[in-house]
Amino acid sequence: MTRSVAILGASGYTGAELVRLIATHPGLRIRALSGDRKAGMAMGEVFPFLAHLDLPALTRIEDIDFAGVDLCFCALPHATSQAVIRDLPRGLKVVDLSADFRLRDPEAYAQWYGKPHAAPELQAGAVYGLTEFYRAEIRAARLVAGTGCNAAAGMYAVLPLLAAGVIDPDRIVLDLKAGVSGAGRSLKENLLHAELSGGTHAYAAGGTHRHLGEFDQEFSKAAGRPVRVQFTPHLLPMNRGILMTAYVEGDPQEIHATLAARYAGEPFLHVLPFGTLPSTRSVAGSNFVHLGVTGDRIPGRAVVESALDNLTKGSSGQAIQNANLMLGLYETAGLMLAPVFP
Amino acid sequence: MTRSVAILGASGYTGAELVRLIATHPGLRIRALSGDRKAGMAMGEVFPFLAHLDLPALTRIEDIDFAGVDLCFCALPHATSQAVIRDLPRGLKVVDLSADFRLRDPEAYAQWYGKPHAAPELQAGAVYGLTEFYRAEIRAARLVAGTGCNAAAGMYAVLPLLAAGVIDPDRIVLDLKAGVSGAGRSLKENLLHAELSGGTHAYAAGGTHRHLGEFDQEFSKAAGRPVRVQFTPHLLPMNRGILMTAYVEGDPQEIHATLAARYAGEPFLHVLPFGTLPSTRSVAGSNFVHLGVTGDRIPGRAVVESALDNLTKGSSGQAIQNANLMLGLYETAGLMLAPVFP
Amino acid sequence: MTRSVAILGASGYTGAELVRLIATHPGLRIRALSGDRKAGMAMGEVFPFLAHLDLPALTRIEDIDFAGVDLCFCALPHATSQAVIRDLPRGLKVVDLSADFRLRDPEAYAQWYGKPHAAPELQAGAVYGLTEFYRAEIRAARLVAGTGCNAAAGMYAVLPLLAAGVIDPDRIVLDLKAGVSGAGRSLKENLLHAELSGGTHAYAAGGTHRHLGEFDQEFSKAAGRPVRVQFTPHLLPMNRGILMTAYVEGDPQEIHATLAARYAGEPFLHVLPFGTLPSTRSVAGSNFVHLGVTGDRIPGRAVVESALDNLTKGSSGQAIQNANLMLGLYETAGLMLAPVFP
Amino acid sequence: MTRSVAILGASGYTGAELVRLIATHPGLRIRALSGDRKAGMAMGEVFPFLAHLDLPALTRIEDIDFAGVDLCFCALPHATSQAVIRDLPRGLKVVDLSADFRLRDPEAYAQWYGKPHAAPELQAGAVYGLTEFYRAEIRAARLVAGTGCNAAAGMYAVLPLLAAGVIDPDRIVLDLKAGVSGAGRSLKENLLHAELSGGTHAYAAGGTHRHLGEFDQEFSKAAGRPVRVQFTPHLLPMNRGILMTAYVEGDPQEIHATLAARYAGEPFLHVLPFGTLPSTRSVAGSNFVHLGVTGDRIPGRAVVESALDNLTKGSSGQAIQNANLMLGLYETAGLMLAPVFP
Repeated sequence: MTRSVAILGASGYTGAELVRLIATHPGLRIRALSGDRKAGMAMGEVFPFLAHLDLPALTRIEDIDFAGVDLCFCALPHATSQAVIRDLPRGLKVVDLSADFRLRDPEAYAQWYGKPHAAPELQAGAVYGLTEFYRAEIRAARLVAGTGCNAAAGMYAVLPLLAAGVIDPDRIVLDLKAGVSGAGRSLKENLLHAELSGGTHAYAAGGTHRHLGEFDQEFSKAAGRPVRVQFTPHLLPMNRGILMTAYVEGDPQEIHATLAARYAGEPFLHVLPFGTLPSTRSVAGSNFVHLGVTGDRIPGRAVVESALDNLTKGSSGQAIQNANLMLGLYETAGLMLAPVFP
Repeated sequence: MTRSVAILGASGYTGAELVRLIATHPGLRIRALSGDRKAGMAMGEVFPFLAHLDLPALTRIEDIDFAGVDLCFCALPHATSQAVIRDLPRGLKVVDLSADFRLRDPEAYAQWYGKPHAAPELQAGAVYGLTEFYRAEIRAARLVAGTGCNAAAGMYAVLPLLAAGVIDPDRIVLDLKAGVSGAGRSLKENLLHAELSGGTHAYAAGGTHRHLGEFDQEFSKAAGRPVRVQFTPHLLPMNRGILMTAYVEGDPQEIHATLAARYAGEPFLHVLPFGTLPSTRSVAGSNFVHLGVTGDRIPGRAVVESALDNLTKGSSGQAIQNANLMLGLYETAGLMLAPVFP
Repeated sequence: MTRSVAILGASGYTGAELVRLIATHPGLRIRALSGDRKAGMAMGEVFPFLAHLDLPALTRIEDIDFAGVDLCFCALPHATSQAVIRDLPRGLKVVDLSADFRLRDPEAYAQWYGKPHAAPELQAGAVYGLTEFYRAEIRAARLVAGTGCNAAAGMYAVLPLLAAGVIDPDRIVLDLKAGVSGAGRSLKENLLHAELSGGTHAYAAGGTHRHLGEFDQEFSKAAGRPVRVQFTPHLLPMNRGILMTAYVEGDPQEIHATLAARYAGEPFLHVLPFGTLPSTRSVAGSNFVHLGVTGDRIPGRAVVESALDNLTKGSSGQAIQNANLMLGLYETAGLMLAPVFP
Repeated sequence: MTRSVAILGASGYTGAELVRLIATHPGLRIRALSGDRKAGMAMGEVFPFLAHLDLPALTRIEDIDFAGVDLCFCALPHATSQAVIRDLPRGLKVVDLSADFRLRDPEAYAQWYGKPHAAPELQAGAVYGLTEFYRAEIRAARLVAGTGCNAAAGMYAVLPLLAAGVIDPDRIVLDLKAGVSGAGRSLKENLLHAELSGGTHAYAAGGTHRHLGEFDQEFSKAAGRPVRVQFTPHLLPMNRGILMTAYVEGDPQEIHATLAARYAGEPFLHVLPFGTLPSTRSVAGSNFVHLGVTGDRIPGRAVVESALDNLTKGSSGQAIQNANLMLGLYETAGLMLAPVFP
């Protein structure tokens, strides 16, 4: 049976990626698309790569009739999601791709995002959308909060290790290499091709990146004690892809075995043989995550790397995976597309 | 009902692209993969982006048991295909992605490829695989020859115009912009990232590119008289994509109307509104072709541009489209994947 | 003896390129830099790659003291230059990098730029800054108008051929491949890395690009009769570089000989052996132009290609070359920097 | 007075970069160029971007007359340098760009490079070419060994901190982002544009990269005790540039002050204000190094980043800087070229 969905904020990259994936999804049908500043335009004008699809025109949120819509994807900018979702019909399931409902603690939200939450009652009930760790809760949820794409990459690499107690929780350094689509379709000088291509630099360094709020919340929960990690993201001249390099302390073979065991039955998480590290190219355009572990000549040190596509497994693919669970569909429905290489 | 296929030459880019597309094809199953120099290796080792698939290991051609195989894709290098295909079981349907069976005329073959054909009897019976122009013949064929990727881009732009007589056949200039994957996985200095990125240059200029043989054959046939075009390909720092710019003489509006009418029912060919020209980004990773027409301040001059993905619609997607026809499947089966952007 | 210069509009790419080149120029010293919106900032903040230089801070134009300044480079946006230059001290030499003074004919200006010129008296006396064709006039000029970067590429390829009468003036097709820095540091969606990298598309097609005004003016003058060319520019995923492909009709060998003879003594123009076409990579970061000619299997057809760096020989390098002449310095002073490859 | 130099191995990237830099060097003249496999070719054929220069043709090493040559740059592959240098005239000064003479300890050499050294007597006397740390020794040396480009990036970030005792020597993690030209002009699948562009991956991870030998040697010497660091290099889709991210433990402000004081008088080393991290784009094509330091929300943790161009300051620019010292020229002669951006 086909379910109907609406996509709010369809004129951004994560909105377009939802449309791309749903285009060949056997169980979902798009009933409404919103894009406030581009309301009235056809999706094929805003994104010519979607011109072959028969889609509803972009509209304003207030003009959407949610009757008959089973689930709403909300791909709006951070801080604007919360008020919109608060006003959606009560019975409507929601997958939010923004940062608005990721943090459980209102104080943590205020600290990282600079102002109080507008819908604290929803915040408390939202489920953190890291599918492989919250499957049961997601199935039962009305509101699921998509994870940060960088946060997802870090958690796949580290969460099971903290839960199993095989690494030192006080000695975790995360060095991230991120593609540019994670910054969205925003007009900023440093995102221009002339500025970004051919080079790299760090951003939001020094413990200031907002995804640290998610790391703190989930890592501390997994370890059963407060965990603070060091995290430095870098922007790379590539459009899709995140490579997370986690420097951890523990036995490399045990670390590898822990990840391999934890993810053995997972359809999208693939642990490479010990000593092999992943490439972002091998997951681009797909919902897969590749993970690798290697040791060092210094005993007790290990490197764990995870690679994923920030727009797919890091955002819109994850959102559909969660929607599949919430709607009673196969979890992998529409998501087995192979990566695109080269 | 599921059909079984073999892929010869699976360790190259077009071979891998076949596997990528078949991975989510509802009617095809891969029974054998060959890759002579990499025989014995798993496909996931040769192409880690395919590691999530359950595939047969690479083997040598002579070790393949073709019993139970319905169709064989042949993605071998030019000039090696002909001898291999000559020796395949008679009943086996074949889609060849090399240049070996594209030219009808043995003399034209010898002229463009520098030596006599090794299987002239098969050459005579092969069908030229430009699906939208040879649909009936492909359905009935045992052997279909995939077109050159550059040739396909040019033909979609120009063939209907010659057939309709709306352009001057003696005044056609084709300026091509091609992505690098069209050159294959070959180790050449000019294909290195350090040499190719950040710049562009022409190659095989001056009427020497082999796809001119295909242009001559098909354009002359469509026009009912000999047609020779000027053709200059350029290599661009992009992995996938071909943009063909055709400078033609005729009435721009009539040209646009001719293309729009000719392709009105085609599932993969999309003619943009008059005055809008296509981008390779809007078709990358997909089997779609975008076409555009514009006029000029000089009356009677027009520019026709076509954009396609050389590995998909230019090679492996086209091959599957043809295979679908040959096997009695829906022509679009497995090929409706949306492009990947950004 | 060292001459003092001011640069108006130093916060854009051509302004920064002027600073880069003057940094190692033996005869020029920067006395003032303007950048209205960034007035008060250090140049090293606006462009960290210039942080090692001891430069005046950015200021507003009205705060510059032009006493002691020998020459002023004006790198302001189109249409804003004319009023600024009109108000500069009479004795100050000026090299304008905008489009404001390129066209001799006030009506042509109004046609291509959409409004009447604000300083028609200066427009009449400005010299067109294509150094190799207007050397004597530039030496004597007070105001020199830098050429369009695309226009320069086309003129180097075609002007001597029209002057010598070796090609058909009614059969010239110019297909351009341009890097993105030519579009400036402007915040436009299609200039984002995520939108531009990995693909290509045409822009300003159909006889609408403003550099056609320059082609009309100079080509007609050289041919001694009106000449109209067809011109289609394409945007490529590269930062620097222009490759102009000119399709012309005439004898290829005679065309090559004409260019080789015309440019024999030129320090920056390099004609490759017959049959060899240029690459933008071989001139990037430099003031050099590479030109190539090849024939075709169709007799009487030829391809001429020119490659240059749009920011250097196409804009700021040309500006300094002209300034050298105007100030009585060696024409090549500060401009012999080798290209940067890879 | 002009000095004469020879370049052995001029057909590779570091050889070509030497030629590029010497092209505008006021005190050096190229007398001979070798390139064994390309002997007999003009440099402009091997590297068209150097076609404007009047250079000797490539020759074989044994055909070079070293009489009148003051200094020889040796840009040969690792392991082949040592035998060649052993046989050069005794009085000839040599700057070697290979790894052959970087390690003082013959056992360390054998360990990292897999076989005994062929010229241990020269190895003992060679000076490690990190100019800012061995200036006096380099001035007096006959043979200077250029540093590894990755090693240089790490040492600029960390050496003064170890020497000053302001960081914990047992807690150093180096995460490197490297451009592809560092891998040379070698024909490897993973260096193809189609394989490398648009993604990233680690290489030589797990304590196996050979530059660790240099780190061990120099870091231990500076700290006065054995130091072992963790080091993971990543390959990025960019041609030039290295960004070294050093995770260290110590007081961030003290770390910044230490670097700023140490490099205060250095012409090429530029320490950014506290909290600002560098970009590879700001040094590309130049001999400059940008360094930045930031703290973390975890007290006592700091990130130090250094950015340099691997072909210039990491190899050929450093080599010329050292040659300047060895030949009694100004240390900065020919090396003040500004970076190229965008």
